[in-house]
Amino acid sequence: MNKIKAVFFDIDNTLYDSTLQVEMVRRNAIKAMIEAGLEIDEEAGLKALKEIVRVKGSNYDHQFNDLLEEFGYDNTPRIIAAGILAYHNTKAAYLVPFPDTVSVLLKLRERGYKIGVITEGLAVKQWEKLISLGLQHFFHAVLISEEVRKQKPDVEMFSIAAQRIGCTPKEAAMVGDRLDKDIGGAKRSGMTTIQILKGKYASQKPASQEEEPDYIVPDLKHILAILK
Amino acid sequence: MNKIKAVFFDIDNTLYDSTLQVEMVRRNAIKAMIEAGLEIDEEAGLKALKEIVRVKGSNYDHQFNDLLEEFGYDNTPRIIAAGILAYHNTKAAYLVPFPDTVSVLLKLRERGYKIGVITEGLAVKQWEKLISLGLQHFFHAVLISEEVRKQKPDVEMFSIAAQRIGCTPKEAAMVGDRLDKDIGGAKRSGMTTIQILKGKYASQKPASQEEEPDYIVPDLKHILAILK
Repeated sequence: MNKIKAVFFDIDNTLYDSTLQVEMVRRNAIKAMIEAGLEIDEEAGLKALKEIVRVKGSNYDHQFNDLLEEFGYDNTPRIIAAGILAYHNTKAAYLVPFPDTVSVLLKLRERGYKIGVITEGLAVKQWEKLISLGLQHFFHAVLISEEVRKQKPDVEMFSIAAQRIGCTPKEAAMVGDRLDKDIGGAKRSGMTTIQILKGKYASQKPASQEEEPDYIVPDLKHILAILK
Repeated sequence: MNKIKAVFFDIDNTLYDSTLQVEMVRRNAIKAMIEAGLEIDEEAGLKALKEIVRVKGSNYDHQFNDLLEEFGYDNTPRIIAAGILAYHNTKAAYLVPFPDTVSVLLKLRERGYKIGVITEGLAVKQWEKLISLGLQHFFHAVLISEEVRKQKPDVEMFSIAAQRIGCTPKEAAMVGDRLDKDIGGAKRSGMTTIQILKGKYASQKPASQEEEPDYIVPDLKHILAILK
């Protein structure tokens, strides 16, 4: 392993449990809509909602309207409002770091590492996450796909991030949950790769040798031993 | 006074302190944006934000983008995100009923009154308020201007509401903070009118005799004596 100077992190399922968050958000939204008058079975509602998000994407903002329509309801502001409110409240409640996230980041900084974020999604939304997680001042560089109009696993996402933080990709490590997005791209750029087994991608299998991580950790705290 | 069968309420500054909420939301949003890197004076920022909302309306959703532009910043996702987050968190924190709201509504129901809401704004947003306030199940009728494409003080807002709840306007009372919107319209419809002295409209003067309320109360609890 080269002398590592910088460590990059994905956000979702790496710094916090986004899979749990998404599940709880949907369930609480359905429960709230039922309380507000939607007469459907909770599990049937959940299933339909998941399908809508799968088809329309996770940033689609009319998922509850579509859901009501699917169950034969007219646009019903009271039910929509109940869903939106539960959605936001639950999202906020589950935007907490993994138990070891903050201490690991602090220790890396103390050891002299530069730390950064390489993440996909809308820039404002990803920053909202970092701020809610209490991490907005921690990172020396934050690279979000929307800003640079690239997507992981594009190698450029990783080389631009390294450049911004002041090192070469070979002098950096990437920590993420997804083999296809985080590990594959980072490895091709020359970074040392560490897969964290969190969230729904923990059981993903590498599609090629390029997606095989250099290290696999169950929790963030284990990277401290790797980066000795 | 006719035999009153139903009592209608405005939401903002009647069931909860929306003037305080708006002030705190703006102040906390500016503070959060300063923490995220916006180098401006807090009071100057507040003043500029108020002016943007005055011109663009309270449901305009790019107020922080406009603010940054005004202070010479490019679209900066980190700062925008900090503002949006503080906005939502503070909005939620101040969505609590006045200390006497819930007990007054319960007592009116116990006494056999029908209770309702007559409010302006977007239907989903007004329902979000009622749900957050913990009041979604309290009212026998909720009339929101967007649904009926009327605005207070249009007399029809009040006559439709009375009809929905099952009485004539003469058999109803309207409680609200605004002389021009709540009192004027309700009085012309035939309702008994009660002004509550809350929020920024508390110092408003009646523009005509039609806007003079039948009763003025400092707090919601005083309507219990009026509706004996």
